[in-house]
Amino acid sequence: MPANVVKKILQNSSETERKLINQFLNYPEDSAGSLMTIEFVDLKKEMLVHEALVRIRESAPQKETIYTCYVTDANRVLEGILSLRDLVIAEPEQKIGEIMRQEIIYANTHDDKEEIAELVKKYDLLALPITDNEKRLVGIITVDDILDVIEDENTEDFHKMAALEPTDVEYLESGVFAMARKRIVWLLVLMLSATFTGYIIRSYQTTLEKVVALTIFIPMLMDTGGNAGSQSSTLIIRSLALNEVNFRDIAQVMWKEFRVSVIVGITLAFVNFIRILLIERYSPPIAFTVSLTLFFTVMTAKIVGSSLPILAKQLKIDPAIMAAPLITTIVDSISLIIYFTLAAKILHFA
Amino acid sequence: MPANVVKKILQNSSETERKLINQFLNYPEDSAGSLMTIEFVDLKKEMLVHEALVRIRESAPQKETIYTCYVTDANRVLEGILSLRDLVIAEPEQKIGEIMRQEIIYANTHDDKEEIAELVKKYDLLALPITDNEKRLVGIITVDDILDVIEDENTEDFHKMAALEPTDVEYLESGVFAMARKRIVWLLVLMLSATFTGYIIRSYQTTLEKVVALTIFIPMLMDTGGNAGSQSSTLIIRSLALNEVNFRDIAQVMWKEFRVSVIVGITLAFVNFIRILLIERYSPPIAFTVSLTLFFTVMTAKIVGSSLPILAKQLKIDPAIMAAPLITTIVDSISLIIYFTLAAKILHFA
Repeated sequence: MPANVVKKILQNSSETERKLINQFLNYPEDSAGSLMTIEFVDLKKEMLVHEALVRIRESAPQKETIYTCYVTDANRVLEGILSLRDLVIAEPEQKIGEIMRQEIIYANTHDDKEEIAELVKKYDLLALPITDNEKRLVGIITVDDILDVIEDENTEDFHKMAALEPTDVEYLESGVFAMARKRIVWLLVLMLSATFTGYIIRSYQTTLEKVVALTIFIPMLMDTGGNAGSQSSTLIIRSLALNEVNFRDIAQVMWKEFRVSVIVGITLAFVNFIRILLIERYSPPIAFTVSLTLFFTVMTAKIVGSSLPILAKQLKIDPAIMAAPLITTIVDSISLIIYFTLAAKILHFA
Repeated sequence: MPANVVKKILQNSSETERKLINQFLNYPEDSAGSLMTIEFVDLKKEMLVHEALVRIRESAPQKETIYTCYVTDANRVLEGILSLRDLVIAEPEQKIGEIMRQEIIYANTHDDKEEIAELVKKYDLLALPITDNEKRLVGIITVDDILDVIEDENTEDFHKMAALEPTDVEYLESGVFAMARKRIVWLLVLMLSATFTGYIIRSYQTTLEKVVALTIFIPMLMDTGGNAGSQSSTLIIRSLALNEVNFRDIAQVMWKEFRVSVIVGITLAFVNFIRILLIERYSPPIAFTVSLTLFFTVMTAKIVGSSLPILAKQLKIDPAIMAAPLITTIVDSISLIIYFTLAAKILHFA
């Protein structure tokens, strides 16, 4: 079955059908093998340029691209590549073996499509050759398919970062039950984690009963902590996805986030202190407690938010699931402990 | 100054320098004009195929791509395009005017790079011709530059959705003060908005003083509302970015979110009711109040989260800023009002 027929079938199939077809074809889902086409131009080293051009001309209508041509030996092992541009510039009597390039960027059928997209982006390729384990050329992936891969990968990251199980079905096409299912699991996990914050509040219930005013600032502290954390986690998750940051940068990242959080924390705490004191007209100790908590919350959020995604990647966990929702849940707990501890000290309970 | 020199200069310049250079060149930043190269192959209608091939061969080393060729008249007005593939397949004595295609996908120098990327993706182009207002061909944008545009646009959306002012400077390269500045504004805005939730709590202070236990569930309600809302807003913002959803779909989207929220809300409320009653051992009225609030919170979050981004786009506001942080702030307030109203009714205060 020619690869473009397979591709057509795959494109018009449901997710489940696609999985079955891919299993049948023995290429893992999301692998290079499942994306490639076998309609490429292959040439031999001994051919002359004008012979190659005739061959390209004859076979062009069936090929996915003729702009990159592949030179293989008798066993279909990939020996070199050359572009149609090279062929057009070359002298008609030159041998393909002389003008082909031997430094080849290629990938294996089992490589993940994300790595494939990385290579195409990095080397500005129009097509990437795909080989089997014996370096035999079995197909190519063209840049237009890579554009789709990149958008899919980005969509997947957007979904994961919003605590959604990723889907490649368009919004308007997906069923209500399937959609609900993709949302419930994470919401349940996060809801149950969020009950920890409830336990923390409960254990400080006597403090709260004395100063109910403290409750008023809980939403503001939690929201600001969540937002400060998601800023850092998003920046880092995106930088990891684009390979701009790696595990070895973790100390540098945390030191940078520490400094940023000092500036951001002081600014927010200051504005907040003034507001609580002058507009909301609470006593200075309360304004001070809330503002100091805010400062430490921002700092915790930024350091947790920036380091967890890097640690996750190192542990082979997708950093995108360390995004806002999870960070918020963690930062909430820490923030509340800081709040009540400071309140107890500053407002002299305990 | 040749465009690739300009491009080189632009690539090695700081953000500020780039702005100045672009202003000088009269092309708006992020426009097609600022991205294009002028190194394209242009042909004339009267040329024969073999003459065109000679011309391409001679000029190939200077051109950004030779795979798409452009046919222009004496005034440089774009008349047709043809691919090197068309040329290679054609008979040497055919006229360019006969084989060129006249249905041309092109863009204007002042078009936004996001629209350009859309065209290249939609039509699987290797290069897109860029014309001035008189349809004179002034440059082309190649697919490898579009890959960068797509990643930049995605990064911008990730940043905006996390309440960050977008930057195109890599994380490790950006300064601490610049970074803090890009985060503070939104955090301040959201922090001050979050104080509304404080006012709501304050106005129900007598209720809270009677049942301090109600405080314990505030973080869980807020977090779950925030997460449920960000799931919906993320799905919709992404679908809007990929043009899968439009303003005319708003009723369909809200109806779908309503049904999803009923399923998700009932599930979460049920689990929560059991947990509060059996594990945390609160009274049934309290468990019921919290769970009913949770149900309405999820519903509000999903409907607000899905409709606001669509409305924003219709009002020419970037939907990405209607993401988790803003939605959370809005949903928090509504959720707390529902909570205290239900508490007052069910627990018989007031």
